[in-house]
Amino acid sequence: MKARNLIDLDDFSMEELDEIVTLAGDIIKNPKNYAHACDGKILATVFYEPSTRTQMSFQTAMLRLGGSIIGIDNPAGSSITKGENLKDTIKIIGGYADIIVMRTALEGAAKAGSIYSKCPIINAGDGGHLHPTQTLTDVTTLSFELGRLDNITIGLCGDLKYGRTVHSLVKCMVKYKNNKFVFISTPELTIPDYIREILDEYGCEYSFVDNLNDAIPELDVLYMTRIQRERFETQEAYEKQKGIFVLDTEKLKNARSDLKILHPLPRVDEITDEVDYDPRAIYFKQAVYGMYARMALIMKMLENSEGYEPTRVYSNSELKCKNPKCVTVLEPYLPTLVIEKDGKHVCEYCDKTIG
Amino acid sequence: MKARNLIDLDDFSMEELDEIVTLAGDIIKNPKNYAHACDGKILATVFYEPSTRTQMSFQTAMLRLGGSIIGIDNPAGSSITKGENLKDTIKIIGGYADIIVMRTALEGAAKAGSIYSKCPIINAGDGGHLHPTQTLTDVTTLSFELGRLDNITIGLCGDLKYGRTVHSLVKCMVKYKNNKFVFISTPELTIPDYIREILDEYGCEYSFVDNLNDAIPELDVLYMTRIQRERFETQEAYEKQKGIFVLDTEKLKNARSDLKILHPLPRVDEITDEVDYDPRAIYFKQAVYGMYARMALIMKMLENSEGYEPTRVYSNSELKCKNPKCVTVLEPYLPTLVIEKDGKHVCEYCDKTIG
Amino acid sequence: MKARNLIDLDDFSMEELDEIVTLAGDIIKNPKNYAHACDGKILATVFYEPSTRTQMSFQTAMLRLGGSIIGIDNPAGSSITKGENLKDTIKIIGGYADIIVMRTALEGAAKAGSIYSKCPIINAGDGGHLHPTQTLTDVTTLSFELGRLDNITIGLCGDLKYGRTVHSLVKCMVKYKNNKFVFISTPELTIPDYIREILDEYGCEYSFVDNLNDAIPELDVLYMTRIQRERFETQEAYEKQKGIFVLDTEKLKNARSDLKILHPLPRVDEITDEVDYDPRAIYFKQAVYGMYARMALIMKMLENSEGYEPTRVYSNSELKCKNPKCVTVLEPYLPTLVIEKDGKHVCEYCDKTIG
Repeated sequence: MKARNLIDLDDFSMEELDEIVTLAGDIIKNPKNYAHACDGKILATVFYEPSTRTQMSFQTAMLRLGGSIIGIDNPAGSSITKGENLKDTIKIIGGYADIIVMRTALEGAAKAGSIYSKCPIINAGDGGHLHPTQTLTDVTTLSFELGRLDNITIGLCGDLKYGRTVHSLVKCMVKYKNNKFVFISTPELTIPDYIREILDEYGCEYSFVDNLNDAIPELDVLYMTRIQRERFETQEAYEKQKGIFVLDTEKLKNARSDLKILHPLPRVDEITDEVDYDPRAIYFKQAVYGMYARMALIMKMLENSEGYEPTRVYSNSELKCKNPKCVTVLEPYLPTLVIEKDGKHVCEYCDKTIG
Repeated sequence: MKARNLIDLDDFSMEELDEIVTLAGDIIKNPKNYAHACDGKILATVFYEPSTRTQMSFQTAMLRLGGSIIGIDNPAGSSITKGENLKDTIKIIGGYADIIVMRTALEGAAKAGSIYSKCPIINAGDGGHLHPTQTLTDVTTLSFELGRLDNITIGLCGDLKYGRTVHSLVKCMVKYKNNKFVFISTPELTIPDYIREILDEYGCEYSFVDNLNDAIPELDVLYMTRIQRERFETQEAYEKQKGIFVLDTEKLKNARSDLKILHPLPRVDEITDEVDYDPRAIYFKQAVYGMYARMALIMKMLENSEGYEPTRVYSNSELKCKNPKCVTVLEPYLPTLVIEKDGKHVCEYCDKTIG
Repeated sequence: MKARNLIDLDDFSMEELDEIVTLAGDIIKNPKNYAHACDGKILATVFYEPSTRTQMSFQTAMLRLGGSIIGIDNPAGSSITKGENLKDTIKIIGGYADIIVMRTALEGAAKAGSIYSKCPIINAGDGGHLHPTQTLTDVTTLSFELGRLDNITIGLCGDLKYGRTVHSLVKCMVKYKNNKFVFISTPELTIPDYIREILDEYGCEYSFVDNLNDAIPELDVLYMTRIQRERFETQEAYEKQKGIFVLDTEKLKNARSDLKILHPLPRVDEITDEVDYDPRAIYFKQAVYGMYARMALIMKMLENSEGYEPTRVYSNSELKCKNPKCVTVLEPYLPTLVIEKDGKHVCEYCDKTIG
């Protein structure tokens, strides 16, 4: 494992991803062998935005490895209120802990933290930008529930436009052979163009369907997500459409007997309570896979992490990112980092095009 | 120990209760023998309502057994704000933890949680309904401080109408031989009828006294509770009455030299500061007994808990509970569970009569 | 180590302070030897006021010694909202934990807590009054970074009037031989008279300088602190003055090559970002020394702490402290404790003169 941090799942090669999934599998089989794997190590959760489930998943993962946990989960109680910047917070907590898990509303904040941290940083969500450990969870679940990561027909249903877990899962699954994608949503909430470009680049088969009933029979996997009421223009539009994308036992009658239903959770009403009793519903099991995937991730990140000192990073451009949600806007001391991609300038923190 | 959860102290047989108290006694004598009894186990505190003392007592209990703790104690930061229901929260946390301690404002919520949880649920208070580990604390304290649980004259003073710790203690102590109860309160704040019926059913001796001075000389145990100002019709009524029920050193002059003074805490002003220095005041010691009782409880609940999968529970009635504080009101997917008791229909969640 | 609590650093003799610093040094060299030094012990953080950094430093310290942590860090969730007094809170938590770290807005609160606690109390800040573990951190840092605690020329810059870390550091460093102090601030924000009296009492050399540039060349140590905008009469006065006391790379050009720059943190803008890359800036390292100093402190405080029962403390005076921030104002059951100092009556809780 060469990667020092997990900011974006793309930081990992397919081999590294495979290493983590394989290790997760061994932990599931022999948990006692790992009960002291992180004895004496401390994981700090730095959550500027609440996310109980993600935080608990990481905390449990570390405790089940024999490690300890400290954390900020109450932003009002943290030094941010006294005006401390992210750099100082990370430098101090990086001096206490062995590994840091960060959650923020600002895009690129985990990347920013990794510039200053002595210890590995895991991105547990930076605004609407990335949430790589959710995708790690999804991939681990598919790997063990299907026994493969290729040759899968995956339906993705709900808010495909804003759903970062959907984008991230697609970006990951295109890399495996013969995966086919069915996008189930209203035309307004379908995947953004850049995801389409990635699908084309990898030569993947994909289709668009505007209701769940038509799509369900051919699926190996159905990845459900929440549609937020706010995404619809009117309450009527919402009421009219929502039933079409709600998974219930009626719609399941047409599905394959070995379908796997996933959901990143929390669920609101896009899956009815009745479905929970169907053996094809594995979203609660998926949360448990998430814990094991995070155990494997923590172990891998702690390998060779000792004695690291971050070297100074200098700006590589005069450009300024204009994304109002980018961490560079609130933390102006950050070096400007811009890369060229297809002739465009892209901010390395938030991945948005500049200018 | 057959019981899988502790929702209501009535879930335990007298033998099971005795098992826990006996184990607590052995932990007190030989704490080192238990320092690793729960190594590798995780206790989750799911507190939707703050209760620092109860939460800390459970956390300390688990840590002193070698286990670890995770928890929600900041409802605003939990998924409830994203609209997640209790079932999903419990299913997910039950996938991370080995045992769950729940505290909620809704009556019957711990019972509801136990329907979906893979791991044991301990009720740490569900609204004004039940708080069984407080009674476990009280019984453990009496057992070790008096050396017996029978033949005790117990005075209960304060708000006997709404005080759930009072009701629960009486319901438990009636089962032991020759216990006598003295209820010390204003007539308006005396015990509810159903407690009186239980006393009669067990053939217990009991009396009502309207001031502490008259009652105190004959008592083996004085169980003090808080009277909330809001319970009185006027501020004058409160001012006039409250002194009569405040325990001070003057009133203690008439008490037996081996009296035991208990209080579930927090105390406000119903016991004066001076009384703390009287050796008969054991309410702070009682809090320590509570920690040991919870250690014993956690150990017992974790026995044989592994590998359990909850089976689906179906509604057994068409009736709907109308108690606005019942968990079934806010969580409508819950199966309706009704039992018949003395010809009446009773909600199994909140124990209120229906219709 | 005779001291039972750390309320004021003056509670420790110079020998005791040296014991702690020496132990901290050994922990830094051989951390593995101490990984189980506090196995089975529980540290409770009782933080009525948020201070993430201090709390995390103590939590990490205890975890790295093999101990466990519990805590109140959400005052709204603690029993204070139900009207419980400090005495009861400390008596209960002292029954659960082995050592308590307290942080409060009220002056003298840690002292008050120590009267009732079975277990040692460490003061982690009581209002603007004392913050002894910060000074312990500073002294530990100087000891290891300079190799000595005497013959040092120390510049202290910023808000010297209200900065309790400044006062506390001076009070400690005067005790070592030949230390020289340079106070760098506006005349309005210079040290209070009582600090001057202490300097004179110990016969220390000291001077006052009204800008950082003039002072910097002769310093071995520069202790920077924050100047709060509120301290200035007008926004203009602030804008005009602040640059004079901001440390930047330009001012550092005139400094010695072996200067050590300290800061208690959080920093706002009194040290520019550029300075962080200068090897003379050791404020982040200082935070790590703080963790080791707290490890040593916890170990020392836990020695011989078992089996202690606090004896009753009686008022020794009829006088009442009139400091509105003194803990005795909100907690009237506290015994009045007054000592005579230079013919004046001084409150033992908040150290303010009475009458």
